[in-house]
Amino acid sequence: MKRIESAANETFRELLALAGSARERRRLGLSVIEGVHLLEACLARSGAPRQIFLPARTAEAVAAAGRDMSGPGVAGAARAGAPDAAQAGAGGTIAEIAALLHATGLTPVVLADRLFAQASQVEHGPGPIALVDTPRPVLPDRLVDDAVYLDRVQDPGNAGTVLRTCAAVGVRRVITSPGTAFCWSPKVLRAAMGAHFHLDIHEGVPPAELLARLAVEAVATTADAPTGLWQADLRGPRVWLLGNEGQGLEAALLSAPGVRRVSIPQSHAVESLNVGVAAAVCLYEQLRQRAAPTPDRAVQ
Amino acid sequence: MKRIESAANETFRELLALAGSARERRRLGLSVIEGVHLLEACLARSGAPRQIFLPARTAEAVAAAGRDMSGPGVAGAARAGAPDAAQAGAGGTIAEIAALLHATGLTPVVLADRLFAQASQVEHGPGPIALVDTPRPVLPDRLVDDAVYLDRVQDPGNAGTVLRTCAAVGVRRVITSPGTAFCWSPKVLRAAMGAHFHLDIHEGVPPAELLARLAVEAVATTADAPTGLWQADLRGPRVWLLGNEGQGLEAALLSAPGVRRVSIPQSHAVESLNVGVAAAVCLYEQLRQRAAPTPDRAVQ
Repeated sequence: MKRIESAANETFRELLALAGSARERRRLGLSVIEGVHLLEACLARSGAPRQIFLPARTAEAVAAAGRDMSGPGVAGAARAGAPDAAQAGAGGTIAEIAALLHATGLTPVVLADRLFAQASQVEHGPGPIALVDTPRPVLPDRLVDDAVYLDRVQDPGNAGTVLRTCAAVGVRRVITSPGTAFCWSPKVLRAAMGAHFHLDIHEGVPPAELLARLAVEAVATTADAPTGLWQADLRGPRVWLLGNEGQGLEAALLSAPGVRRVSIPQSHAVESLNVGVAAAVCLYEQLRQRAAPTPDRAVQ
Repeated sequence: MKRIESAANETFRELLALAGSARERRRLGLSVIEGVHLLEACLARSGAPRQIFLPARTAEAVAAAGRDMSGPGVAGAARAGAPDAAQAGAGGTIAEIAALLHATGLTPVVLADRLFAQASQVEHGPGPIALVDTPRPVLPDRLVDDAVYLDRVQDPGNAGTVLRTCAAVGVRRVITSPGTAFCWSPKVLRAAMGAHFHLDIHEGVPPAELLARLAVEAVATTADAPTGLWQADLRGPRVWLLGNEGQGLEAALLSAPGVRRVSIPQSHAVESLNVGVAAAVCLYEQLRQRAAPTPDRAVQ
């Protein structure tokens, strides 16, 4: 294994630049993915990363686990350790990391623990950190399936929560406006818990471009809409429009011809719902109506 | 107005200790509330705060707004400014702050801008910051109404989001276990957007005490429950149990006799839902069933 001890090393400096700068990640089309569970999700859907980094202490634990099996090596240790994977203990994690490394076929770059800590987002995290090509799916000319559009949703936790809910309900496409949190940032990746790898994510699509490609209805939630969420027929495909935390949706979107408004019932005790909550309430009502055996009091 | 220029001032040092230390806030039973909208919500429900602090630049703008009205003073300026209150501009905020000060009847303590910035959680925030008595409602011996119980929910954003959703759907009681994020912390207050002042919040209630007081069913969501959320009859009152982000609910809660399990449908693409999303899906399904004119495919 390649082992890096010096902060002046070129490979380490490139990793640090990517870990610390959204601009650099965008420029190179790379994302920094940390943690064995996120990387498992990535590997299952997007293939092997470009490069994997481990802290020296984890690399040593992986090697020791391999030796303990006296022969079968890292992959054997991983298989033997698999039943423990659900445990929170370090042993389970080491077995998972060993299995992951084996599955990628990559030789990890080992960083001195203090160097790894500089690149890591997780205090005392065992790694790994990987560089992956940021997926850039092509936005279809005609949007005919379910999707969610985020209009300047700024909080990374909110953006990540929406992605996670989309994956949970089987909505496969998320489109974001300029000004929305960058979906491949570490905070959004953490909040989405692997959902990224089950979605096509199209970033930086202005409202006008979205509207031009719409081939199904779009639905916006507004407090003053005459139709309540539960009265709307949500069985067909649609694009849900979710707006900025403070200002809501851009006026041009709200008034566009293909956009229907529905209201989510709520008390006056609060001004509005959290955007991740609004998304969940809409997407789950859509799922419920589709799962219902018969039309369910829905009126158009 | 009292004006503080020195960091050695006793009143300022007390404020700084409270702003910086959850332990100190708990010890004294005080909370630190920042921002005009949170304080409006507080004032409407809990009465006037103990003390209000403004940065010098805001105090001067409020005074100038009063002079501009040539006579009517601060309250007049506030009334005149009220139509602008919805605007994001500083003028709207100043009018709102003036109205708030008038409504409290308190004379604010004015801090030099650099001192205010030390106590503030908001970069360049215009204030005010107020000290309020942390409400400590008495937990009823018998829990007979809707409530939500948070079992070691650690993320302040998640806890605040759940409070906000409870206020939105009219659930008036939130009970938290030891180990749940302290609900009156600045982060939870920000995420809940004023919901605190529409709820009775009981903190530090162990699971055994909750179970001992239960006089309605409690419902836990688990992936393996035989009854789906949409098949459960949710029209009566109940206590929803929401568990820790990683580990879920404590086993003693899940296996207790009065606790029913339901499952929220979801794809295998993600392991679980965000706890704030799970709460929203459950609480909105409960609201939907109660709003439905007739029993709606619900089976017990």
